[in-house]
Amino acid sequence: MNRKGLICINTGDGKGKTTAAIGTAIRAAGQGLKVLILQFMKGQTDIGELKALAKMNLPITLRQYGRKTFIRNRDSKAVDIELARAGLEDFNKAVAGDDFDLIVLDEINMAIDFDLLPLDAVMTAIREKPPELHLILTGRNAKAALIEMADLVTEMKEIKHPYNNGIMAQKGIEF
Amino acid sequence: MNRKGLICINTGDGKGKTTAAIGTAIRAAGQGLKVLILQFMKGQTDIGELKALAKMNLPITLRQYGRKTFIRNRDSKAVDIELARAGLEDFNKAVAGDDFDLIVLDEINMAIDFDLLPLDAVMTAIREKPPELHLILTGRNAKAALIEMADLVTEMKEIKHPYNNGIMAQKGIEF
Repeated sequence: MNRKGLICINTGDGKGKTTAAIGTAIRAAGQGLKVLILQFMKGQTDIGELKALAKMNLPITLRQYGRKTFIRNRDSKAVDIELARAGLEDFNKAVAGDDFDLIVLDEINMAIDFDLLPLDAVMTAIREKPPELHLILTGRNAKAALIEMADLVTEMKEIKHPYNNGIMAQKGIEF
Repeated sequence: MNRKGLICINTGDGKGKTTAAIGTAIRAAGQGLKVLILQFMKGQTDIGELKALAKMNLPITLRQYGRKTFIRNRDSKAVDIELARAGLEDFNKAVAGDDFDLIVLDEINMAIDFDLLPLDAVMTAIREKPPELHLILTGRNAKAALIEMADLVTEMKEIKHPYNNGIMAQKGIEF
């Protein structure tokens, strides 16, 4: 098989960055690929994808490296940096171990943008990956240097959002 | 629970319209919602999401209303119209039966754009849905009237694509 590991980025201010990565993970697992999902800045257990993956008989491993509360306004603390670096370390280990065909680095763009992870360290880790390993990086504000390295970049652009009409986040759809 | 059925649209020329819908379906199923996915203009069985969903123990039903070959350049035939209308009929039945919490109408925007489905009939079906039923419509070239009806609209915008660098579609990532 003519396999070339793609570096994909889902960025932008719109919905669908993480769900598209999860959808691709499901698709990949359906085709027999082994998938690892590392979620940066997320530690909520009441999220649908976590509950669903736990019930599935699919080769998908999901790990979280964040607190339960979502960090807003760049109010990050030492613990957030520690958690994010643990995630990057696990990424490096997974790459070295060569156990996966697709690794999703969920919200890593935001972790870099919030200065939880040094851009250089992430770029080095990506550069050292096996050529056939697929990567998906998600999160808004993807750095230009990462976009430069990537093969496939999609911007999820918000055209219309229900919050603007006073509708609250809907369980099962938005988390 | 403060439940309001959202009408969501994933459109644009970029990747992630269908995978985001599949990811949301997984998330919704993980939260206990019953999900129906109707794929218009698709009849391929070698797609990862189909294989994965078959292996999952999740309340997700997927049906396809297309030929195995993908229609390009608007070269649609009577059989394509017939299949698409069968999909719309099943949507109407599912809405009337009130058996689902989320219905994904995958590629329906394209089916309308290719004149396989009349826009009016789709809009009527959507207008008659129960208020708490969530819908996700995917496909490029979403009609303005549908965007007007929707609560949440995301444009998936292609920033960079590997085909432009001569890299072929990768199994597990793109299908």
